[in-house]
Amino acid sequence: MNRDLLCENVSVSKDGQHLCFAGMDTTDLARQYGTPLYLMDEDRIRACCRAYLTAVHDAFGDSARVMYASKASSFKRMYEIMREEGMGVDVVSVGELYTAFKAGFPLSNAYFHSNNKTDEDIAFAMEHGIGYFVVDNEEELYAVEREAAARGITQSVLLRITPGIDPHTFEAVSTGKVDSKFGFAIDTGAAEDILQKAMVQPHLSVKGLHCHVGSQVFDSEVFLLTADVMLQFIADMKVRHGFVTELFDIGGGFGVRYLPSDPVLDLHGCMAEIGAFMKQKAAALGIDLPAVAFEPGRSIVADAGMTLYTVGNVKCIPEFINYVSIDGGMTDNVRYALYGAPYTLFQANAMNKPHDMTCTVVGRCCESGDIIQPDVKLPATIERGDLVGVLTTGAYHYSMASNYNRLTRPPIVMLSGGDSYVAVRRETIDDLIALYQK
Amino acid sequence: MNRDLLCENVSVSKDGQHLCFAGMDTTDLARQYGTPLYLMDEDRIRACCRAYLTAVHDAFGDSARVMYASKASSFKRMYEIMREEGMGVDVVSVGELYTAFKAGFPLSNAYFHSNNKTDEDIAFAMEHGIGYFVVDNEEELYAVEREAAARGITQSVLLRITPGIDPHTFEAVSTGKVDSKFGFAIDTGAAEDILQKAMVQPHLSVKGLHCHVGSQVFDSEVFLLTADVMLQFIADMKVRHGFVTELFDIGGGFGVRYLPSDPVLDLHGCMAEIGAFMKQKAAALGIDLPAVAFEPGRSIVADAGMTLYTVGNVKCIPEFINYVSIDGGMTDNVRYALYGAPYTLFQANAMNKPHDMTCTVVGRCCESGDIIQPDVKLPATIERGDLVGVLTTGAYHYSMASNYNRLTRPPIVMLSGGDSYVAVRRETIDDLIALYQK
Repeated sequence: MNRDLLCENVSVSKDGQHLCFAGMDTTDLARQYGTPLYLMDEDRIRACCRAYLTAVHDAFGDSARVMYASKASSFKRMYEIMREEGMGVDVVSVGELYTAFKAGFPLSNAYFHSNNKTDEDIAFAMEHGIGYFVVDNEEELYAVEREAAARGITQSVLLRITPGIDPHTFEAVSTGKVDSKFGFAIDTGAAEDILQKAMVQPHLSVKGLHCHVGSQVFDSEVFLLTADVMLQFIADMKVRHGFVTELFDIGGGFGVRYLPSDPVLDLHGCMAEIGAFMKQKAAALGIDLPAVAFEPGRSIVADAGMTLYTVGNVKCIPEFINYVSIDGGMTDNVRYALYGAPYTLFQANAMNKPHDMTCTVVGRCCESGDIIQPDVKLPATIERGDLVGVLTTGAYHYSMASNYNRLTRPPIVMLSGGDSYVAVRRETIDDLIALYQK
Repeated sequence: MNRDLLCENVSVSKDGQHLCFAGMDTTDLARQYGTPLYLMDEDRIRACCRAYLTAVHDAFGDSARVMYASKASSFKRMYEIMREEGMGVDVVSVGELYTAFKAGFPLSNAYFHSNNKTDEDIAFAMEHGIGYFVVDNEEELYAVEREAAARGITQSVLLRITPGIDPHTFEAVSTGKVDSKFGFAIDTGAAEDILQKAMVQPHLSVKGLHCHVGSQVFDSEVFLLTADVMLQFIADMKVRHGFVTELFDIGGGFGVRYLPSDPVLDLHGCMAEIGAFMKQKAAALGIDLPAVAFEPGRSIVADAGMTLYTVGNVKCIPEFINYVSIDGGMTDNVRYALYGAPYTLFQANAMNKPHDMTCTVVGRCCESGDIIQPDVKLPATIERGDLVGVLTTGAYHYSMASNYNRLTRPPIVMLSGGDSYVAVRRETIDDLIALYQK
């Protein structure tokens, strides 16, 4: 069978029967580690990092940075890999920051995002030498200034700007789409206002600007629109306030393939287009192009991950629906329940069988919305004990996992060069009650 | 100000300034325990248990049972309270079962639900003396039989039946709404088929039937419809197969008040109506009414809970929207993100101020969908450091909590008789990395 397996790290065993991931037989991995099971392909993660670094350096020169948006998948081993690959990271909480710290990640190469940083968060991040706060709101600006003053240091910050571009239609709109909970809108004057306030804080060094618009983007269009608006703002701020933007982080949002119908991203080509456009635009505006940063999350780790489940039962309700129940659910993959997100599934131990039964794959939670994916095709012979593999689960799965129904969270098993190892062990039922004081 | 505070355990301090819960000042509790903070009113939980037990005993006699659907909120202390109040419980996983076991709950008075019980789950539950398996599918039937045979015991089971009633319109429909992932539909013949198969299993004792239809129900109608269908089925099975239903669990679904516009449930009155109807129906069908069980979850614990947050910033985007960012979010309350669930909010440290600013209360997650509640009213003067209280968060909040963005989960502080104690301690950033092996 000639199937689109979405990513080059997905394949079928020589006998045609088993789904393989990162060159390893998933049925062997399920037997060794149990299910549900998160697999992460370390080599793919590294390859994605390198592809990004090459693309941005080719497009923007050596000053360009790639900051892994670690909320996509945050655990200690991930930050070690990022350190080894020369990536920066963005963290959105003290929890992520501490995890990176414990992994030996140099926090000077990290941004601290979040629309709500507490005073304690700010002190903790400064104590651990965070490189940049990405300031989201005025309250935070003063809180960071106060903490830097108390420590007698100068803290580098970026300002989060809302360029006013609709993330869905990718249209620049002059009045709408300034209604984000994040950042300061250019259109309302809030962006210019906060810049002026930030520039006069005695213990802050405003290094530049940050913005983020799209998600699941497969071409350069939204970045060109964003760059157009932001470079104009950068030029205006230079003229009006003498502010020189040293660093411009244009965010993330490049897409990954969840379905065979999803396009294949030409990352290097996109970056080249964005780079050419930004150089031309900067020249036209008479400014130097700042150092440029990108903040990919999903596109670094999503297709480096997949999930394996064991089937518990198949319930065929004639003329209505066929259910295949698996041993995980919205606890380890909440994305269909939350967003109606699409996925590609296979019977991992029967790749040679025709996948011709339309069915809805449901989780084991006591909740009718606990659906992994409706209307997919699996073999009509699938039964209790069979294995289901779900592709492209490396981003926003482990990081969003819960203990709903008091299910334990799956382990993360990393695959590299034909070997496997546990990066995060499986939760146990004793872990579930570890926090009880009474 | 005369406000509808939803439940009798919510009040305002004598000086009119502070929100009180279970008679305790929430600003004191926030200071003592920090935020975000789950509060649970133990006395309210106990009162709800007693109200249910009284209502069902008055309506159905001493044989009636109330089984707390513990997925609504499952932690050790909760099962201790259920034991002390003479409640049964339903558990949906080994995690819940083990938590109940560790709390000393007598598992002979527990049902094991779930649409997907693994062989290991079944063995674990039997080892711990579970009272009843609620058999959801044919594979499970044989798996329970095998395990009981291996142990040389007779295991009590109920069968989960789908009565074919639309849970939204509460209409009995002959062809639709049999498409649930749970149980066996009467209309398709699946229910009768599984009963015949279950009756001949040598190590199973089929004690009765279970079904569940509604959610957030404030009157008896859906239970009357359900009882009508189910009692007919019970009578039919007696005639056709000589099967005597000893126990009939009609599920849960009674509602709680999230908004002032929600009605107040007359539980005792509803139960009396359901009881009268079922007695009459059973008499008309010429059968003895089985022992009846109800399975409330939300209505036992929801209004016994509330959440306290601290405000981080207020962002007013003129002509568009006002955001109030708090220090929790979809990590501790995913119900708006998942279901668009409504909530009632107050500024807990300024109950005396007019709540007249329309705003959207958002969480601290780096995700635009991280909304606690849109379009609520809070004082226009609210600012960083103020407290926001969200009512009716006792069900499906702690139990659905995640570590998304690597935020730590709040503690559960129990309130009883004017005192407070920690039932589940706050997670720490060291807890977050406790599972790492590499």
